[in-house]
Amino acid sequence: MMPTTQRLRVGIAVDLPAADLELMRELEPRLDFIYEPELYRPQRWHGDWEGEPSFSRTPEQAERYHQILASSQALFGIPDVNPGLLQKTVRENPDLLWVHTTAAGGGSQVKAAGLNADELDRVTFTTSAGVHGSTLAEFALFGVLAGAKNLRKLEADQAQKNWPSERWRMRHLDEMTILVVGLGGIGKAVAERFKACGSTVWGTSRSGKPVSGVDRLIEPSQLAAAAAEADAIVATLPGTGSTEGLLGSEVFEAVSEGTIFVNVGRGTVVDESALIPALEAGRIGFAALDVVAQEPLAPNSVLWDHPNVLISPHTAALSNQETTRIARLFAHNATCFLDGQVLRNKVDTVEFY
Amino acid sequence: MMPTTQRLRVGIAVDLPAADLELMRELEPRLDFIYEPELYRPQRWHGDWEGEPSFSRTPEQAERYHQILASSQALFGIPDVNPGLLQKTVRENPDLLWVHTTAAGGGSQVKAAGLNADELDRVTFTTSAGVHGSTLAEFALFGVLAGAKNLRKLEADQAQKNWPSERWRMRHLDEMTILVVGLGGIGKAVAERFKACGSTVWGTSRSGKPVSGVDRLIEPSQLAAAAAEADAIVATLPGTGSTEGLLGSEVFEAVSEGTIFVNVGRGTVVDESALIPALEAGRIGFAALDVVAQEPLAPNSVLWDHPNVLISPHTAALSNQETTRIARLFAHNATCFLDGQVLRNKVDTVEFY
Repeated sequence: MMPTTQRLRVGIAVDLPAADLELMRELEPRLDFIYEPELYRPQRWHGDWEGEPSFSRTPEQAERYHQILASSQALFGIPDVNPGLLQKTVRENPDLLWVHTTAAGGGSQVKAAGLNADELDRVTFTTSAGVHGSTLAEFALFGVLAGAKNLRKLEADQAQKNWPSERWRMRHLDEMTILVVGLGGIGKAVAERFKACGSTVWGTSRSGKPVSGVDRLIEPSQLAAAAAEADAIVATLPGTGSTEGLLGSEVFEAVSEGTIFVNVGRGTVVDESALIPALEAGRIGFAALDVVAQEPLAPNSVLWDHPNVLISPHTAALSNQETTRIARLFAHNATCFLDGQVLRNKVDTVEFY
Repeated sequence: MMPTTQRLRVGIAVDLPAADLELMRELEPRLDFIYEPELYRPQRWHGDWEGEPSFSRTPEQAERYHQILASSQALFGIPDVNPGLLQKTVRENPDLLWVHTTAAGGGSQVKAAGLNADELDRVTFTTSAGVHGSTLAEFALFGVLAGAKNLRKLEADQAQKNWPSERWRMRHLDEMTILVVGLGGIGKAVAERFKACGSTVWGTSRSGKPVSGVDRLIEPSQLAAAAAEADAIVATLPGTGSTEGLLGSEVFEAVSEGTIFVNVGRGTVVDESALIPALEAGRIGFAALDVVAQEPLAPNSVLWDHPNVLISPHTAALSNQETTRIARLFAHNATCFLDGQVLRNKVDTVEFY
């Protein structure tokens, strides 16, 4: 993609704090923003891009919002985070060249817009993947530590006011091998943190390209064999057709007793009907799940009740700094766009991740 | 201290795995070991230096054990980890020049031996401080993460099968300031790990000497003021006369609402009568305590029951690798001893840490 202009007209399509707009202006002065705060569904909490559902625009406001979408060359955010409205916007605005989605998994929203090949060719889509990398990597560290330090035994002893005279041993990250499944932005952030704690870090890779902090790259075909030797497995993969159920019976039957499992990617990557028997048999000794296959988790799921499961309601990525992190990423990509460079987090319009 | 010999006769005074003895032989060939495994109180678990209390020696074995102690120039371990026997050994063996203690806090055992100034002058004492640094640093990371990720809210929601529709926010290490109280071996290992996670790291220091990974050094007189601005406080100090109750009402009254507190040093550093009101008022939002002032923790302590306290029964330091780590440290110090260099972890015979 070549630059088509020396400046870029950017429509803000979702509720963005004014301070973050100012930050983008400073970081890339060649942007002309169209920003009308009263036209956006207000965030109910920091980083709530979908905004207040009861919000509605007056006819006059609706027309002004439409004008933002119709006159922009680039959009910050999918309009109302609504794939149908994204489709309409792309169809009606031939000048639109780039849409940045505020979600890490923005690819699935783009897919849901059902755009045709010409449209996907004209408009570049980028996601906010990586913005949540450090927060998710921290949750992965927390989940593995909770398993390694035997949180559940600590809690059980505490509940009974039991100070054991026989001093049992925790596991230590610097004596463990951590298998990171997926070495994208989140996976790399996970690998860095475990490496800093002295772990042996393995990571799955299709490309086989070396990754900083990763001691050994695992081909996808060797996943179950590697899982069998790992002390902990951290899943970081996005939800796509090719990752669905990737962590299934082959992996969960291969793992050694007491393996720790953390999922900070997408719940659909895990076949829960294979995870649950592994938990029951103790092969998975502790599981920390920020995501599950179906969210919210169904009330009758045994994952709620299992003593060795910690459920986090898809919360680990959210940060007070999220809007600012995304604004920085957008400004970086805008500079790339204007300079004809490759953008970060470009959506693959075949796999839509 | 100058080397007095080209070789050193080392008595093994506690139960050490044979593989660790071999490691020391390889690392420092100038050592002559006296090692009689059947004479030591057997370890009940890995790193149990005090050993099986019901063990007793036959008169013949007792004489052989005495001969080890009487003929060594250096000792690996305090005999039977018994300060009284250490005193007797030092008094009766004028050739004894160095004793390495297997505890991180070996200084208090040396103090308990009640040696006179001449004896403390003749014999160098070293501890195994730092061997436990990484394991304790991991527990500190775990404790702060448990507070930051709001473990107790996750657990309460999970117990009620509640997947909140309003997405609350966890705290993130890369947005937090961590105050490390004490920058010895443990404190440095703590600082490194938080720095690798992107935290702002402050550390207390008497010397004011820069420490890798520490963004700001805090003078001891500024402790309460720094605590007031920190998101989490990690205590790593040893138990000495000058650290007793150092974290008391001044600090716990100054901290901001929801501050996380972790103690991986010694329990006596904390004035629990000041910590408890801070927990009750919510100024301390979560406390992870690997140590308490009186161990085992008294059954009537409110720390057992407080929902925002996680008790670990002085377990976080224990490692499967402990004996090997100590063997490596001993070999390093033996080389220093023979070469007339400064030994690591020399006990300060004024403060006894």
